Amino acid sequence: MITGVHHIGIAVKDLDEALAKYTGVLGAGLESVHDMPETGTRLAFLSAGNTRLELLAPAGPDGRIARFIASHGEGLHHICLEVDDIQKSLDFLSARGIPLRDREPRQSPLIGKIAFLQPEAMNGVTIELVERPKEAKKPKR
Amino acid sequence: MITGVHHIGIAVKDLDEALAKYTGVLGAGLESVHDMPETGTRLAFLSAGNTRLELLAPAGPDGRIARFIASHGEGLHHICLEVDDIQKSLDFLSARGIPLRDREPRQSPLIGKIAFLQPEAMNGVTIELVERPKEAKKPKR
Repeated sequence: MITGVHHIGIAVKDLDEALAKYTGVLGAGLESVHDMPETGTRLAFLSAGNTRLELLAPAGPDGRIARFIASHGEGLHHICLEVDDIQKSLDFLSARGIPLRDREPRQSPLIGKIAFLQPEAMNGVTIELVERPKEAKKPKR
Repeated sequence: MITGVHHIGIAVKDLDEALAKYTGVLGAGLESVHDMPETGTRLAFLSAGNTRLELLAPAGPDGRIARFIASHGEGLHHICLEVDDIQKSLDFLSARGIPLRDREPRQSPLIGKIAFLQPEAMNGVTIELVERPKEAKKPKR
């Protein structure tokens, strides 16, 4: 089912502080920064060679990342796995009793059609699936 | 500094249960399974296309993974980043005041020379660095 890891999501309190550290100290390459008012987040994609890091910061006191940091602190948040056909993947998972947060894919303005599994589905790991647009199908090399 | 993500480490209670799910449901490919009595763990590497997942289970009630699961539950544990020269990387990080768990690299019997940063160094993310043996230098494609 999975064809690659699109990105590794990391929850941070302050996007600019984290960006400076991940680019300046670790040497990850900044790809893009996005304000996402609909989810109350600011985020950045960084190249890590064969895959990407996604730094996710709360844009205010509400929203999923603000709540995650309030209860868990900063740190690893989710992994995003590429699949060829997301609806087929969700149907396959559902038929095997895997609990899904999204039963239908939704369109991300950034990366393609996405859906989240419930963390309890896969040993506490929050997994996002993404089906990339046709012209961007190949995992990052 | 970083040239790729070697693997994403996931702490699980029961390696065989998790392996069945990650291979059978997500379709990750089993690469290898290892008993690591010196660290009190059993672990497996799985191919995820452009990078790997590492499932880490406690082999007994002690050890780092047993303690992690006792306090955090199962879930994302660390990311392992490939670098060309690990001693140079550690010196670079140290000079910038980044707190290191290992000031000198140690030889992993599995993947190369490794060292861990302190999680507080990088926004709560436990980062492992690895310098691969010369003949395996290229990140997984």
